[in-house]
Amino acid sequence: MENTEKPKKGTHSRKEFLQRTVLAGAGLSMAGSGQLFASPEAEQNSALFFETNIKSKGYAATDESGKLSPWEFERRPVGEDDILIDVKFASICHSDIHQMKGHWGQQQYPQVPGHEIVGVVAAVGKNVTKFKVGDRAGVGCMVDSCMECDSCKHGDEQHCERGETLFTYGYPDEDSPTGITQGGYSDKIVVRDHFAVHIPEHISFEEGAPLLCAGITTYSPLMKEDFNIGEKVGVAGIGGLGHMAVKLAVSKGAEVYAFTTSPDKVEDIKSWGVKEVIVVNDDMSNLGAYSKTLDYMICTIPYQFNAAPYEACVKPYGNFTYVGMPDGFSINLSNIALASTRVNFNASLIGGMPETQEVVHYCADYGIRPEIQVIDAKEINKAWENVVDKKARYRYVIDAATF
Amino acid sequence: MENTEKPKKGTHSRKEFLQRTVLAGAGLSMAGSGQLFASPEAEQNSALFFETNIKSKGYAATDESGKLSPWEFERRPVGEDDILIDVKFASICHSDIHQMKGHWGQQQYPQVPGHEIVGVVAAVGKNVTKFKVGDRAGVGCMVDSCMECDSCKHGDEQHCERGETLFTYGYPDEDSPTGITQGGYSDKIVVRDHFAVHIPEHISFEEGAPLLCAGITTYSPLMKEDFNIGEKVGVAGIGGLGHMAVKLAVSKGAEVYAFTTSPDKVEDIKSWGVKEVIVVNDDMSNLGAYSKTLDYMICTIPYQFNAAPYEACVKPYGNFTYVGMPDGFSINLSNIALASTRVNFNASLIGGMPETQEVVHYCADYGIRPEIQVIDAKEINKAWENVVDKKARYRYVIDAATF
Repeated sequence: MENTEKPKKGTHSRKEFLQRTVLAGAGLSMAGSGQLFASPEAEQNSALFFETNIKSKGYAATDESGKLSPWEFERRPVGEDDILIDVKFASICHSDIHQMKGHWGQQQYPQVPGHEIVGVVAAVGKNVTKFKVGDRAGVGCMVDSCMECDSCKHGDEQHCERGETLFTYGYPDEDSPTGITQGGYSDKIVVRDHFAVHIPEHISFEEGAPLLCAGITTYSPLMKEDFNIGEKVGVAGIGGLGHMAVKLAVSKGAEVYAFTTSPDKVEDIKSWGVKEVIVVNDDMSNLGAYSKTLDYMICTIPYQFNAAPYEACVKPYGNFTYVGMPDGFSINLSNIALASTRVNFNASLIGGMPETQEVVHYCADYGIRPEIQVIDAKEINKAWENVVDKKARYRYVIDAATF
Repeated sequence: MENTEKPKKGTHSRKEFLQRTVLAGAGLSMAGSGQLFASPEAEQNSALFFETNIKSKGYAATDESGKLSPWEFERRPVGEDDILIDVKFASICHSDIHQMKGHWGQQQYPQVPGHEIVGVVAAVGKNVTKFKVGDRAGVGCMVDSCMECDSCKHGDEQHCERGETLFTYGYPDEDSPTGITQGGYSDKIVVRDHFAVHIPEHISFEEGAPLLCAGITTYSPLMKEDFNIGEKVGVAGIGGLGHMAVKLAVSKGAEVYAFTTSPDKVEDIKSWGVKEVIVVNDDMSNLGAYSKTLDYMICTIPYQFNAAPYEACVKPYGNFTYVGMPDGFSINLSNIALASTRVNFNASLIGGMPETQEVVHYCADYGIRPEIQVIDAKEINKAWENVVDKKARYRYVIDAATF
């Protein structure tokens, strides 16, 4: 069941918990009310899941240094609308780095980043029918919202009109033992069922993880743009998000122009079926040749940059969607450049839960896979450096067994 | 004739001039080839118009102080596709102040500002059929372009694809004796016929002048938006441009919400038929009540401001058009605010010549008039201070007889 009422979570639904544990303790069959536990061992541990906080371990930032270290912490107990996921893989997004370093505002530490999370459902709350124990599940950038406003009821939970969208890490969360949400660089996560999606069998866990942010963040605006087959779509910045944008746009029939500052990515990008790869000059002068040629452009550059030469590549009255999130979320634009290009500048924030499920199915079904490098937890700090230095090819995925 | 070939101008068409002055000198009737001169006196002065530079006087900036002083200078002779206008009125736009003060880049001085110019045609070049001597004519923000590219051929001369749009003052112009274009705070102007519009008899000169920039700059994006009757249109910044935006949007059937920081403008604005006037708080907190309520917003604020609270008034996926031109043409946006509001941010640059003629006819025909205060030339400096101090109500119009 996808309950649309505000659920009682963990210790906040103590009465409900007691009812359930009494049943469990009496050895009554759970079959009628859903399979609550993954195994006899898990059943034995049920009290741990539903009453007490759940011990987790992962990698956390403790300051703005951008260095993570192992950390043991607690998750809330599994509430009646929650699921517990044994995390299998979590991938690294540039946003993790920005937020931990305080680029978007002061943070509470320790904080576990990660919002591209996949794993296996280990326990489900009383009201949950969407998942059963053993299901493959994924969690992206948000873990709760009001579920009652128009936006939430229509699958735009990231735009909750009450401002109650709860992002996956670093957001105040009274239900969290640490006071904030804690992300996916960890071995376990408890999340409201509505905010998890199914990961089909025909995509691997490690390739599924990046879809939860990089996939949906590019898929959502590309689908809204609703371009026709053969139309020219530009993608600026070919990293974790950009390479997914390229693959998705190619798969939807666009003639894709990929703009990168990394010459050594050219061969990779060509292999994904683009029409052309443009290695952008330091002075961006070679963008001039593409002036007013593109029907649409999506830009994933995750730092401050001069947007005007990119914008100018879009035909007048076309759209330019910026999904990168730079330091301070700040973009400086030239009004005269905007006026001259007549381009609509907009931005897009991930996607809602139905669309997140959709992109996972779409990629699974049509063979669209992120390019990944699987790493152990101890390699996270080096991987972060590589992301900042544009050396990632193209998404680092952490094996959660190594936390 | 609206010649679409690059014309020969002034002394650049000396041979043509000689042919014409020979005819004039011989006292031959000009009736068959157009009325070239306004009066016998003008005819006597014809050599001055067509061969030698034309003496003009006006007010010019000589430095970045923002203070103007009287200046005598020369215009080019009237070329074969040019008209000479005896200026009657020129109005004051905030852009004049920005540009003269160097806010948009270093300027050449002395420079005569002014791009809202009306007057009477005093002479026409050989090829000109669009105007005859004695016609009422207006000139706006541009005075030439390539006339051959797709944009120019389709009435978007301000977006000349060859970058040859020549703006009315301060732009390099080899045909100008001063080396740059000189604007309308002066008694005469020579301009290519295509870049002048007719000012109908049923609108006064002084009320026609502000249409040439404030009118077209707001009319063009409002018409492109193509809102339906009863839709909610916001106008932010109720000065020279904003008050025209209000009147135009009201006249096109919008339910208009006017946002101003000047409480003493409220009664004026109400009298123009708006639905509501919002006096914006210093902390902009009262904009919250209008979150996601408007179908469209046009913003005319001519200085750096925090756009996010205004943007947020527009419904998701609606358009926000910024026609103000702040210092350095620079706008700082929050990407997270753009992503959250899902608003398309765009800008608009005046309008093409056909659309400029259209707004003049529209306002003349439907009784839409700017609110003006006529001043003498010696009052310009004080008027500029008032514009900066938000004391203009709502457009100062200079009587060119006082230069």
